[in-house]
Amino acid sequence: MTTASPFDQAIALQPQADGSFLGHTSAAYGNMVGPFGGVTAAQALNAVLQHPQRLGDPIALTVNFAAALADGPFTVLARPARTNRSTQHWVIEVQQQGEAVLTGTAFFGLRRETWSADEHAMPPVPAPSAVSLAQNPPRVEWVRRYEMRFVEGAIPTEWDGKDQGISRTRLWLRDAPPRPLDFASLTALADVFFPRVWRRRPVLVPIGTVSMTVYYHADQAQLAATGSGYLLGQTQAQAFRNGFFDQTAQLWNEAGELLVTTHQVVYYKE
Amino acid sequence: MTTASPFDQAIALQPQADGSFLGHTSAAYGNMVGPFGGVTAAQALNAVLQHPQRLGDPIALTVNFAAALADGPFTVLARPARTNRSTQHWVIEVQQQGEAVLTGTAFFGLRRETWSADEHAMPPVPAPSAVSLAQNPPRVEWVRRYEMRFVEGAIPTEWDGKDQGISRTRLWLRDAPPRPLDFASLTALADVFFPRVWRRRPVLVPIGTVSMTVYYHADQAQLAATGSGYLLGQTQAQAFRNGFFDQTAQLWNEAGELLVTTHQVVYYKE
Repeated sequence: MTTASPFDQAIALQPQADGSFLGHTSAAYGNMVGPFGGVTAAQALNAVLQHPQRLGDPIALTVNFAAALADGPFTVLARPARTNRSTQHWVIEVQQQGEAVLTGTAFFGLRRETWSADEHAMPPVPAPSAVSLAQNPPRVEWVRRYEMRFVEGAIPTEWDGKDQGISRTRLWLRDAPPRPLDFASLTALADVFFPRVWRRRPVLVPIGTVSMTVYYHADQAQLAATGSGYLLGQTQAQAFRNGFFDQTAQLWNEAGELLVTTHQVVYYKE
Repeated sequence: MTTASPFDQAIALQPQADGSFLGHTSAAYGNMVGPFGGVTAAQALNAVLQHPQRLGDPIALTVNFAAALADGPFTVLARPARTNRSTQHWVIEVQQQGEAVLTGTAFFGLRRETWSADEHAMPPVPAPSAVSLAQNPPRVEWVRRYEMRFVEGAIPTEWDGKDQGISRTRLWLRDAPPRPLDFASLTALADVFFPRVWRRRPVLVPIGTVSMTVYYHADQAQLAATGSGYLLGQTQAQAFRNGFFDQTAQLWNEAGELLVTTHQVVYYKE
């Protein structure tokens, strides 16, 4: 008998007779209010991954966090809005008590081998084994589900509000315990970065991601080759403006292949 | 009597009794197949902008191009999926003959003044008046609706297939004829960049944007201050992989304020 990993337990969905999926928030991925958004995004994607009408693999996903999920069950509705010969467009909604808590869209496709190139190269960084494990006692439970080794721009230890002039963070990361990478876990990994406004100007202002987009450059073979190895994550904001900032990020595997590029816009208060 | 600009004519929508909006493709923005996607994105946003239930201004928009629009009428459905105290989540669909040709989501919000900073600074470039107007005869009609002054990485003139090692383009641009900037025109301007795969490796391979996300950092006051001035656009790909590449972009006004950051994923064939 094997025991499912906390991540597999968290994203598990039960297909319902009406075509929807039933899920449940996971205490293992608890956040300040509601669950870690990366797992909610993975759950939304998982409804498409498990859907009997699915064609191909994820290329793009956008999720919008409409409200904090309450601890408990939720329903995922995933509808194929358009199916072409080799591509498919999905509309997704997560509901609690009949109200939308997440809206989203996904684009899936069949890939063909073409001329390819990674233009955004992995920056030169020390190997994961040469970077120490983050030791800060986490404020929230979900952080314990990831191994994080900060190369640059760790979570501030002095919340002195001094403008750092830059919001970039680089870290090695993977699931804890280690788990073979798939599209669902890659989606959650795309959201592990702590909010850039805390990095740029260390003040613990309230924040919340409102929209997140993930572009999957990896195919199944690259995921399999990456296995449970580390990913290098890099993230930086482009603008902080009157209540909202954006945050871009890249995830490479140890071989230096760019697996994901992702973007989000985050609410902040002060 | 005044005549509406081609852009205003293109994005005009008629509210219908059932709450949907009726639009029509515009020959002035014709592309290789169907209309310029930037105008279709602007039309989708415009349904929310004109909606009687709208709260605040656009912060994030994602549109997915599910099929090339046929020349003719289309219907835009815009539904407020969730309205919070100061934010609102929209689900959008554009249909022709009852079939989805575009799916999308939008996030609107009321802004409050907070600590703000532009982290991605405008690169040093010559002033618009010092950069010559692109003179290439355009292959498609919509290109005539924009004034483009390439600083770096213009459309290739030799399609020799040589890998350039970089896909970056920088250009000054604005509507032609000039038109005061608003959220709709800013949305279209976020999509004017020619496909990065042609820049990186000049081969005229078939391409098509499949998903595009726009983050609006500008508020109404900044749009008004920008008026009909030039925007500096910068765009670059991060990865080209087996049929799909991504493309990130920034738009600054002449004062150097970052108005928009945007991302798209594009299909390419070879």
